Amino acid sequence: MSLNNVFKALSDNTRREILKLLQGGDLTAGEIAEHFAMTKPSISHHLNVLKQANLVQDVRKGQNIYYSLNTTVFQEVVCWFYDFLGCSDGRKNDGDEG
Amino acid sequence: MSLNNVFKALSDNTRREILKLLQGGDLTAGEIAEHFAMTKPSISHHLNVLKQANLVQDVRKGQNIYYSLNTTVFQEVVCWFYDFLGCSDGRKNDGDEG
Repeated sequence: MSLNNVFKALSDNTRREILKLLQGGDLTAGEIAEHFAMTKPSISHHLNVLKQANLVQDVRKGQNIYYSLNTTVFQEVVCWFYDFLGCSDGRKNDGDEG
Repeated sequence: MSLNNVFKALSDNTRREILKLLQGGDLTAGEIAEHFAMTKPSISHHLNVLKQANLVQDVRKGQNIYYSLNTTVFQEVVCWFYDFLGCSDGRKNDGDEG
């Protein structure tokens, strides 16, 4: 996982909205597109950025390709913040008691 | 705060390193630049991106301008993840997403 790609992918409202939609379950690109006043190619572009960041995966089910959330990557980003904010004292240079 | 700007600012190794440096205390642009094999103008550019995202603030102390971390914004980003990952179900109902 590249944190650069992940943060870049998250720096867009539409992409964050797509991720929220996928929280509700896997969706095809067409189903995702229905939620936005946007062309399908635009949605495909956003989905590709999310895929490159590994935030979503595409899975073939029958004839359709479904997009699903990869929550592992979210965990890793949250870990970065957790670490950054010093929650994980002891692992890094020493901090408060804990 | 614009989450777009925050995530964009975080999508760069150098900028994330600068934020880590500032964890140790406020620094001038010159002091920050010493830690990188980069020109001062490049560092200034990164500092500006961080400032635009409100992740750092500049504070005049005597003759120098010091950069300091704005941890409030980190909290807000962590809140976004917290919310996204469903830790806070019930706190927010519907979509005034900004």
